[in-house]
Amino acid sequence: MTHGNKLDYGTFEATKARSAALEQDLKINPQKYRVLTGDRPTGALHIGHLFGSLHNRVRLQNLGVPIYIVIADYQVLTDRDMFDQISQNVHQLTLDYLAAGLDPKSGHTFIFPHSHVPELNQLLLPFLTLVTQAELDRNPTVKEEIQAAGQKRINAGMYIYPVHQAADILSVKGNIVPVGKDQLPHLELSRVIARRFNERFAGNTPVFPEPHPLLSEAPVILGLDGSQKMSKSRNNAIMLSATEDETAALIKRAKTDADRTITYDQTNRPELANLLLLCSLCTGRAPEAIADEIGDGGSSKLKGYLTESLNEYLRPLRERRRELAKDPEIVKNVLRDGISAARAVAQDTLSEVRRVMNMEI
Amino acid sequence: MTHGNKLDYGTFEATKARSAALEQDLKINPQKYRVLTGDRPTGALHIGHLFGSLHNRVRLQNLGVPIYIVIADYQVLTDRDMFDQISQNVHQLTLDYLAAGLDPKSGHTFIFPHSHVPELNQLLLPFLTLVTQAELDRNPTVKEEIQAAGQKRINAGMYIYPVHQAADILSVKGNIVPVGKDQLPHLELSRVIARRFNERFAGNTPVFPEPHPLLSEAPVILGLDGSQKMSKSRNNAIMLSATEDETAALIKRAKTDADRTITYDQTNRPELANLLLLCSLCTGRAPEAIADEIGDGGSSKLKGYLTESLNEYLRPLRERRRELAKDPEIVKNVLRDGISAARAVAQDTLSEVRRVMNMEI
Repeated sequence: MTHGNKLDYGTFEATKARSAALEQDLKINPQKYRVLTGDRPTGALHIGHLFGSLHNRVRLQNLGVPIYIVIADYQVLTDRDMFDQISQNVHQLTLDYLAAGLDPKSGHTFIFPHSHVPELNQLLLPFLTLVTQAELDRNPTVKEEIQAAGQKRINAGMYIYPVHQAADILSVKGNIVPVGKDQLPHLELSRVIARRFNERFAGNTPVFPEPHPLLSEAPVILGLDGSQKMSKSRNNAIMLSATEDETAALIKRAKTDADRTITYDQTNRPELANLLLLCSLCTGRAPEAIADEIGDGGSSKLKGYLTESLNEYLRPLRERRRELAKDPEIVKNVLRDGISAARAVAQDTLSEVRRVMNMEI
Repeated sequence: MTHGNKLDYGTFEATKARSAALEQDLKINPQKYRVLTGDRPTGALHIGHLFGSLHNRVRLQNLGVPIYIVIADYQVLTDRDMFDQISQNVHQLTLDYLAAGLDPKSGHTFIFPHSHVPELNQLLLPFLTLVTQAELDRNPTVKEEIQAAGQKRINAGMYIYPVHQAADILSVKGNIVPVGKDQLPHLELSRVIARRFNERFAGNTPVFPEPHPLLSEAPVILGLDGSQKMSKSRNNAIMLSATEDETAALIKRAKTDADRTITYDQTNRPELANLLLLCSLCTGRAPEAIADEIGDGGSSKLKGYLTESLNEYLRPLRERRRELAKDPEIVKNVLRDGISAARAVAQDTLSEVRRVMNMEI
């Protein structure tokens, strides 16, 4: 499995098989694992996040797996200017987490922003000495950014962010990271850093686990305009925090096609299929069955069906969110507790790192 | 003085004039200033360090200027493998500092290693978003390293280390950095980062001072083999911790030239001039006067004179060093106190940084 220092986690098929095996073991031995995941606080979350990642996190939490959720506040600044909303976004994001069922009271879930865990950030220093510029240059996301920005114009925060991700994961000794296929290269660098650190400094007693990807089986939700990604900034997203009327209005504007008869055809009718998929996720019914039922009722009937089922599905979440939003201290306390927990773990990790690196006083 | 975002501190002559003016004000208003300086713990120090930087630090301390001395332990790993001696080297370095007269009991001097001040290291994160890859590529030292190592092979720790230096300086809001001419570009980047941070985040109330270079007037001590630099690894250095016999033996082997008559001629007789300069530094006499006195006595008489005057000069320092070395707790306590002081300042700075970046909970 280890190919020296090569950035390689085997074939994608092998990765999928390993991930499936992990899924089985998670149910039997949840306490053997520690999940690290997170988001950038660029705004509140939408239903794409709910079906794509939040449900999965709640599922892991409810299995009893410890789950550390980092709010990557510094990472907002790697490609945006909007620092004036960071604190507000952290607050909104945390409300979304809690409303979706992530529950620090479970004792398994810890929510914290980067900026408040210095011991995590310090791990950047030793980790940066373990990777070469060439390896950072090869990172596909960084490559894309360099191309998009014109060579050499990206800031150094963007350049090293895969190393910061390694610090996130390894500061809490995360051994499981839920990822999509496109994020595998980042995780691969974290694995390489863990391995090199252990080989160089830790002798026979590894300090860090090599974190494993847990591949998501979650459906990808398209934007309501039919574009590949639901996103607030494209104005094609239904926010978790939207009202029922806003939700209805957004669905009414959703892109469909000219054919009146509703069928479930992901290849040729992606926009309709996306709406049917959402109906299916909300009702538990097969998308084909919903399509059959609506048949010649056309897109307006489909949209009515989706509006009703989505609003019903989200109702308890939205009610919880409204309740939680009434008292800002609730979110603050969740974050304070998360910070304490993350710092306690990261301090232990950092002490161990200093010890093996021969940096004790 | 500010040329937009250009890396530029005016001409070297202007820098020298500004540095001289600073020197005057330091004597009148020492508490207006805060010095940040330091060393990598790659080994014990030699007389080149003593005359080149330690005396200057002691001088500043005795003026009543607060002086923060960072032991850059992580930076050892940017181009060396010898992590197994880091802790020992930190200890030896601190003994040299104390023996040379740096005295935490003065209330002005704080000695601490990087690895124990997480709040300092965290500043890397916001700072990295304020510089581009292109700016790091332009750093002369990094350029040299890239050339020396073959393009792209340097590690990312080396690549970003000018930003880490900015974190050192700005974490304690250092406004004075003693430097040689060749270190001006690094300091320039710290100035740029301070300026950009203030402009972007701090509105009308700057968080950071733009640190000023205090140009060293200290003499450059050549190696005993006549090479440009005294250094332990070239085996051409007299360590502060050497015995008097070791010192004598090293001076006996020092390179001179074939002309028996001793004269002080830096251009044509650099090795002799170096030995005469050392005699002068130890005795306070002019090097020309010493050369005249020895005259036809030749290099062996000069070496005898240097051995005697250097050993005498170093005697109190070495005695102090031996005393201090007897109880390892002394150094440990100095470091613990320095860490506490540096963390207290860095925590305040970090809180302020989080506040203006809108990252408070």
